[in-house]
Amino acid sequence: MPTEPGSGHDLRHHGDAEVRDDGRALVDLAVNVRADTPPGWLRERVAASLAGLAAYPDGRAARAAVAARHGLPVERVLLTAGAAEAFVLLARALKVSRPVVVHPQFTEPEAALRDAGHTVDRVLLRETEGFRLDPAAVPEDADLVVIGNPTNPTSVLHPADTLVRLARPGRTLMVDEAFMDAVPGEREALAGRTDVPGLVVLRSLTKTWGLAGLRVGYVLADPETVALLERAQPLWPVSTPALAAAEACVAPAALAEAEEAARGVAADRAFLLAGLRDFASHGLRAVSPAEAPFVLVRVPDAAAVRRRLRALGYAVRRGDTFPGLNEEWLRLAVRDRGTTEGFLRALGQALGA
Amino acid sequence: MPTEPGSGHDLRHHGDAEVRDDGRALVDLAVNVRADTPPGWLRERVAASLAGLAAYPDGRAARAAVAARHGLPVERVLLTAGAAEAFVLLARALKVSRPVVVHPQFTEPEAALRDAGHTVDRVLLRETEGFRLDPAAVPEDADLVVIGNPTNPTSVLHPADTLVRLARPGRTLMVDEAFMDAVPGEREALAGRTDVPGLVVLRSLTKTWGLAGLRVGYVLADPETVALLERAQPLWPVSTPALAAAEACVAPAALAEAEEAARGVAADRAFLLAGLRDFASHGLRAVSPAEAPFVLVRVPDAAAVRRRLRALGYAVRRGDTFPGLNEEWLRLAVRDRGTTEGFLRALGQALGA
Repeated sequence: MPTEPGSGHDLRHHGDAEVRDDGRALVDLAVNVRADTPPGWLRERVAASLAGLAAYPDGRAARAAVAARHGLPVERVLLTAGAAEAFVLLARALKVSRPVVVHPQFTEPEAALRDAGHTVDRVLLRETEGFRLDPAAVPEDADLVVIGNPTNPTSVLHPADTLVRLARPGRTLMVDEAFMDAVPGEREALAGRTDVPGLVVLRSLTKTWGLAGLRVGYVLADPETVALLERAQPLWPVSTPALAAAEACVAPAALAEAEEAARGVAADRAFLLAGLRDFASHGLRAVSPAEAPFVLVRVPDAAAVRRRLRALGYAVRRGDTFPGLNEEWLRLAVRDRGTTEGFLRALGQALGA
Repeated sequence: MPTEPGSGHDLRHHGDAEVRDDGRALVDLAVNVRADTPPGWLRERVAASLAGLAAYPDGRAARAAVAARHGLPVERVLLTAGAAEAFVLLARALKVSRPVVVHPQFTEPEAALRDAGHTVDRVLLRETEGFRLDPAAVPEDADLVVIGNPTNPTSVLHPADTLVRLARPGRTLMVDEAFMDAVPGEREALAGRTDVPGLVVLRSLTKTWGLAGLRVGYVLADPETVALLERAQPLWPVSTPALAAAEACVAPAALAEAEEAARGVAADRAFLLAGLRDFASHGLRAVSPAEAPFVLVRVPDAAAVRRRLRALGYAVRRGDTFPGLNEEWLRLAVRDRGTTEGFLRALGQALGA
């Protein structure tokens, strides 16, 4: 993937590149997909859908299920081939002249906007402010504002009220909630809200459910925006197995399972953060409070630490490809206690502790 | 799906709509997917890929396999989420000012071009000429020419030499070979050719292999065009199960199986055509020679015939949504002899024979 000209950051670098091409298995703390997923019941649902592969996909049942899950009419829902397709559709279809992306955050939205010919302005949140958003920092004339919540890679969860203050007539407010289902109670979610003008929410089923290989996500927006994006989609955009997965993952039992998983992530994250505090004397600090299934840490000479961790069998995500961060940052996926204990030992070695 | 303004034909009508929404099972002669597909071994390959769903798709092995199948370097191959995605990518990414589509043919390429803002000119092939192409009918200044081979819905197989005569410097020649693997020996195929300037070949794995629900196809073109299209794709455009299927379907044993299936289709088609000749006295005639896994027929009052066939339990594809055809045309999928015998009996009833 090319480096974006002039951006200084490789917006097309993703964690999956950090766990392959190595010729041996690494313990993966680089990719933000929940471990031990998809669960057996979900794999069975997807496998059962293979019986219908000869027919063209019919997305109506999945769309209705997603709409019901958020209490919305189907006209406010668009299923997409992963959030990645949604970014491209939004970048191409929206008529905007001053898009602004709040960084550091997932780089695909900006990359898609640039690819579609837009000039993109950035609001850079600062470490000294805990990467929290001051709405006044967003230019008043921005007609598209893109922000993640909780944010990848900072793990910051913005208050819903703060985000709502970004909305105004004539502006599209795009909130990437790809990791919101990993937040207990989905507090601060805007999905399902119809009272926020110009709100577009993106959701993923990839991370919590281990469906990165299946390409499925969805957009929640006003009916006009949904219709606009739908016209920009190819015919039959989401595959039959992906539709089956989407329908399964929004059922009440699945939502209860996701909620339980989210509480487990919170406990595992607390364990990781406590372990990381032991390395404060080595200059390591984590962004806090962290609310997503990953943690952003700053550590001197992070590139060397990352190399040493690789040699010890652990893949972590470099942070320097995110605008607003530099080579001192690493992103760590939250894993179970056993994995985290092993990682913390390796980290101690890598830091010379 | 909306009717294209000003086109007079619903370019977004597809056969899959004719076999659903009816509340009961119809014998399907409307959709051009081979019956009894996917075969068991292929379903198993796809099912096995589900073990890797938590990882992001890695398309390298499938791309290499497709390239090897056509004797091309990987730089000339792009996997897509079905031919439908390829049409949208081509329509958006190619810098063309005078696109021309040769009709009657599959309507998605023109729909995608219009959606991308292009004004599309049409060359209409004529029944009186057997829907065969005279290259001189294509405007000299066309910088994109789109044609299907064999052509949906006419079932005409254009000679490769005729198509090559359409190529010239400064023009993209897009040949949709979605049904070429159903032609014994794939004679007249341009896939794999590198000596034709501006050639872009589209291939589908949907029809022969029964993978319509999986969304997988590919484009063969010069490396510059492939790179252009790739930049217009979303990240991770093809799902892991679809990649597994693509790799499996281009293996030598699969190609041999496709060839055998193609010979079976030819025999089944001959049986169907012979049966249709019995209705010549009712004004029914089939376009001949037919070389694809479907047959285009003209019959007086076709709409009423189609309704009566539906009442008798058979779905056939209306022809009037194809530019160049009108309400006197129907497209019939080639099925096994038993199915065709039943269909011919129903057709006799529908015609009052």
